[in-house]
Amino acid sequence: MTHFISHDFDSELQLRVERIRIMMADRGIDALLVAGNTNLYYLSGRIFRGYIYLPIEGDLHFFIIRPNDFEAADYLTYVRKPEQIAAWIKESNLTLPKRVGLEFNDLFYSDVERLRKIFPDAEITDSSMLLRHARMIKTPYEIEKMRQDGLHQAAAYHRITRLYRKDMTDVEFQIEIERALRLEGCLGFYRTAGSLMEINMGSVIAGANADNPTPYDFAMGGAGTDSSLPVGANGTTILPGSTVMVDMNGSFNGYQTDMSRVWALGELPELAHKAHECSRRILRELERIGVPGEKCSRLYDVAVEIAKADGLETYFMGHKQKAAFIGHGVGIELNEQPVLTPRSKDLLEESMTIAIEPKFVIPSVGPVGVENTYVVRPSGLECITPFPEEIQEL
Amino acid sequence: MTHFISHDFDSELQLRVERIRIMMADRGIDALLVAGNTNLYYLSGRIFRGYIYLPIEGDLHFFIIRPNDFEAADYLTYVRKPEQIAAWIKESNLTLPKRVGLEFNDLFYSDVERLRKIFPDAEITDSSMLLRHARMIKTPYEIEKMRQDGLHQAAAYHRITRLYRKDMTDVEFQIEIERALRLEGCLGFYRTAGSLMEINMGSVIAGANADNPTPYDFAMGGAGTDSSLPVGANGTTILPGSTVMVDMNGSFNGYQTDMSRVWALGELPELAHKAHECSRRILRELERIGVPGEKCSRLYDVAVEIAKADGLETYFMGHKQKAAFIGHGVGIELNEQPVLTPRSKDLLEESMTIAIEPKFVIPSVGPVGVENTYVVRPSGLECITPFPEEIQEL
Repeated sequence: MTHFISHDFDSELQLRVERIRIMMADRGIDALLVAGNTNLYYLSGRIFRGYIYLPIEGDLHFFIIRPNDFEAADYLTYVRKPEQIAAWIKESNLTLPKRVGLEFNDLFYSDVERLRKIFPDAEITDSSMLLRHARMIKTPYEIEKMRQDGLHQAAAYHRITRLYRKDMTDVEFQIEIERALRLEGCLGFYRTAGSLMEINMGSVIAGANADNPTPYDFAMGGAGTDSSLPVGANGTTILPGSTVMVDMNGSFNGYQTDMSRVWALGELPELAHKAHECSRRILRELERIGVPGEKCSRLYDVAVEIAKADGLETYFMGHKQKAAFIGHGVGIELNEQPVLTPRSKDLLEESMTIAIEPKFVIPSVGPVGVENTYVVRPSGLECITPFPEEIQEL
Repeated sequence: MTHFISHDFDSELQLRVERIRIMMADRGIDALLVAGNTNLYYLSGRIFRGYIYLPIEGDLHFFIIRPNDFEAADYLTYVRKPEQIAAWIKESNLTLPKRVGLEFNDLFYSDVERLRKIFPDAEITDSSMLLRHARMIKTPYEIEKMRQDGLHQAAAYHRITRLYRKDMTDVEFQIEIERALRLEGCLGFYRTAGSLMEINMGSVIAGANADNPTPYDFAMGGAGTDSSLPVGANGTTILPGSTVMVDMNGSFNGYQTDMSRVWALGELPELAHKAHECSRRILRELERIGVPGEKCSRLYDVAVEIAKADGLETYFMGHKQKAAFIGHGVGIELNEQPVLTPRSKDLLEESMTIAIEPKFVIPSVGPVGVENTYVVRPSGLECITPFPEEIQEL
């Protein structure tokens, strides 16, 4: 098809394109014009500035603005602006598409308005959700990349206990964890869907800060250190009898895993231990029932039921402010499809990759619970974030 | 007006709103509905999930989705979804606006399509450029915040020489600089305009990597370490006779400064020194001519003329791939208005804040040049990134 990255990527790209074309046929879409970074990466294996034209039949075509070092090839054309795509379609004697997909949830309004003019006679429809649904089922190649992410993230987490020093603040602790992750190869950058997730390299939440609500769509809150980025560590000293939840960047290769673990200083009240064990029991149960065909909403409901049965509902998924989900797809973006909410209509499918994070906020103690990233397998969920789940001592 | 943040912020907000309303009147806009994080922050001093309604007359109103801990006040309303804003306008007996500004270049297509339905009878127009132009002239309060950023960034840069160890790679060097910045209070997060600037905590470019082109809109390139984030450090060992340019995150308080400096290992060829001194002479000249009323395009032209006169045009603003600007506004976002390009129609105005970065790529040696952040003053440009400009020895 194309050797945009390497010959090795050809068969991989073919898998992805085939799945997308089935969905295009299903929705009566003749062509996609892809412009968002996440989907450009998905369809090329690299980031460039430009566009990919994906007709329902025939070859993909890559339009490149930058960088300027691609070798000439029949599957790519250098352009200065997207309007040149219209001329290329004409010169290539291609049939003009009647129904074109553009990424309504990934591109700015002005970008979509500009791109739609390339196809003045076509109906324009959203392709963001189509592409998100295509991306939620991972290929073996993608799962292998995420497995590598999990191993690297776990390797960095294994250094965390030794990074703690007496009287450290949560921010100071986070900075040392950031360094350990970066030395392990972490890229230190997240791609996210939508505009509701702003964060630096992740979240380290200690003690009472866990009960500070955030405007963002993260499972846990935290006040942050500045009103311009109100999430996560807030400069609080880590105190005896409190917990620290580490939920840091797991991006090493364009994909990522999402993993949270808890460290504690000194003795914790029984309630904290009970809630932490409840989180682990929720994970064991969801790993068992999380087979292809199961409803995402059922995973949510079962988690809530277990927390309720333990009398822990008040603390589950936040205390003063609660998150409305217990897990989410993860891959190129931190927050992919499906989302495990009570109202989800999605069913689990084989080779989805999902982070599940049943967490509790224990007032004045801090956050507890475990987050793992899983692959949906015929026999249940396979964990790819191999790190001990017990509360670790500082 | 409102005490959304504090009484102290009231007069500050009034300054900002007055400037925006002059521009609204000029463009015949009756109301803005603001939803992008940068502009929410500009008009409230904090980040929340929600909307701000800014009519051309009367009070601002804040619609909050999250967080859930705002105190009740007559200037704010909790909503679950933006459609409730329509009901609020009706119940408040406000005149429905005839022409409404939405952020076409800051919101996704689907978000604008959703928000426009709140005003079914109104004409919808872009407010992104209006708000960018309002934000490009800073208030004294904003300039003071940026002055603090510059002091913090310089304090961290003063530690850089001591962070170098023999045989370090550019990535290892960058990680230690990231830590120094974070310990100094850097938030480790950038807000950018548009979708063409993806980066982690910044750019450390050493030796031949400077000549690797990037897809992004940064002045300098670099291959990065992974095809998913092709910019900056690429894992190259810092070699004798080469330079390292440090252009790292200067965000400490919702605003930021942008500053680049060069370190070198061992002796450099004369060409590198000559180009570095040329960059400094360009800055001195632009500082002198950069008074209110001067054309932004003239600053670009003068910079190119000086580089040409020194016979350095080949290396100026990149070698294999060149950047099309020599500076840009900076503030809440890293890339604000104006942009110093040959085709800019903008004139300098007092209290603009601009990063100017005349840089050169010397093949097989590395990048040289200086970047400072400036405030436009009646007498010229005032530098707020106080750090020695000479090439520093490693």
